[in-house]
Amino acid sequence: MSVRPSVAELNAFFKREFPQAKVCVDELGACSAKVRHQVGEGELRPGGTVSGPVMMTTADVALYAAILGELGLVALAVTTNLNINFLRKPVSGRDIIGVCTLLKVGKTLAIGEVALYSEGTEEPVAHAVGTYAIPPQRLR
Amino acid sequence: MSVRPSVAELNAFFKREFPQAKVCVDELGACSAKVRHQVGEGELRPGGTVSGPVMMTTADVALYAAILGELGLVALAVTTNLNINFLRKPVSGRDIIGVCTLLKVGKTLAIGEVALYSEGTEEPVAHAVGTYAIPPQRLR
Amino acid sequence: MSVRPSVAELNAFFKREFPQAKVCVDELGACSAKVRHQVGEGELRPGGTVSGPVMMTTADVALYAAILGELGLVALAVTTNLNINFLRKPVSGRDIIGVCTLLKVGKTLAIGEVALYSEGTEEPVAHAVGTYAIPPQRLR
Amino acid sequence: MSVRPSVAELNAFFKREFPQAKVCVDELGACSAKVRHQVGEGELRPGGTVSGPVMMTTADVALYAAILGELGLVALAVTTNLNINFLRKPVSGRDIIGVCTLLKVGKTLAIGEVALYSEGTEEPVAHAVGTYAIPPQRLR
Repeated sequence: MSVRPSVAELNAFFKREFPQAKVCVDELGACSAKVRHQVGEGELRPGGTVSGPVMMTTADVALYAAILGELGLVALAVTTNLNINFLRKPVSGRDIIGVCTLLKVGKTLAIGEVALYSEGTEEPVAHAVGTYAIPPQRLR
Repeated sequence: MSVRPSVAELNAFFKREFPQAKVCVDELGACSAKVRHQVGEGELRPGGTVSGPVMMTTADVALYAAILGELGLVALAVTTNLNINFLRKPVSGRDIIGVCTLLKVGKTLAIGEVALYSEGTEEPVAHAVGTYAIPPQRLR
Repeated sequence: MSVRPSVAELNAFFKREFPQAKVCVDELGACSAKVRHQVGEGELRPGGTVSGPVMMTTADVALYAAILGELGLVALAVTTNLNINFLRKPVSGRDIIGVCTLLKVGKTLAIGEVALYSEGTEEPVAHAVGTYAIPPQRLR
Repeated sequence: MSVRPSVAELNAFFKREFPQAKVCVDELGACSAKVRHQVGEGELRPGGTVSGPVMMTTADVALYAAILGELGLVALAVTTNLNINFLRKPVSGRDIIGVCTLLKVGKTLAIGEVALYSEGTEEPVAHAVGTYAIPPQRLR
């Protein structure tokens, strides 16, 4: 069994492995994670809203954070499937918050859902479900 | 009926509407489009491969290009769903090519599939299916 | 605004419109529904478990029930997209329960997620997300 | 390496393993399969069209047939994900034809796409992408 990393350990891991990423982890729990994408100018679409790829990225990182919370800091799990529905226009200028709940952590696949919010709003702007493949040779 | 824009017109439209995008259109045909994401340093993951979000972005743009090819240069169609399967590790340093075929262009929804390749390889690195909602007030 | 039908009204509607369906509604709430597929011999796979199509059907009906709960008894909303992940082997011989929560009920699209369970178990056997198109001419 | 079964062998296998199924295999090729769902009264929706679950079932069987064509007659591969888009109303009374092309047959996952048609029509009525998990202990 792995020991769940702390939020600080996970953020240090992300910064080392993905130095260009703009998503950080806010919370980590049992089969769950909350991440934040700080919205900069570069990601805005016409009309001032956040682009779809930013939301997909945030969903993907939220899944990865929740999985690493269960498996420990292994860099090798890879996304195999992501399905996202865009629900509402994000609020201009607000960070995007991703809240992931894992549905299953199996031996070879981990699956979870992510609700995405403009910070401070109640209704999700998007909803994603994704699958990561877990390599067989991982040390736990 | 709209007139299909030329590849140059579509690229000029993308540059104006999404100045930070790194995807350009290579070809445009009946219900189809071929786009290219020029891979820079910033998008590489550990191991030198292209990140998942780059592939999702390329798929999304390929769909949008094919739809604009059918509807004309309206900026307002929005992605409502994207489902992507990651199949193989992209070849390090190669551009990502997205080849979109529209499955349906209806009054309110347009749906298409996109095969994604590392340039010069035959087997796709990813495959996506996506839906755009077309606003009712569009002028054709 | 429509008046939410009662569970009995919705079950009578389903029986009239889909006489061969084996799914019934157990509960109906704000943007939510709980449905039940009574498992018969015909749907079992080798090993005694419920087949994937039975779970897809249950997810589809759960979405439809929740949408009809919001829109009133209109027969015309149609599924446009369904994405389902199969998580665990269902328990042999148990009914399949589908719990739907709508994520959005817009003018033209309604989107929801469905957790599917073998009755009496806590971990979902499958999870689905689906979209229905709502025809513009509906009377509310 | 397995030997590809013949169409007759695959149909005999399906009949033995899934006696209640109404889908049969018409053709089998390299990473591809064509299947047919004979449409009976029980599957019709109001208006005489085929139900969504029938199309999902046909897509699932088409994937399974194409995978068994590659792996040989092992009963154990299981669907882990299916995403389907419904595109057009099926033609009343026509069989549903599913044409599957596998995108990847890996060690643990096989992924393919399926175009679904009302027999004799050119435009697909639905399009699906699905993933099967392949158990590690299979004999090839």
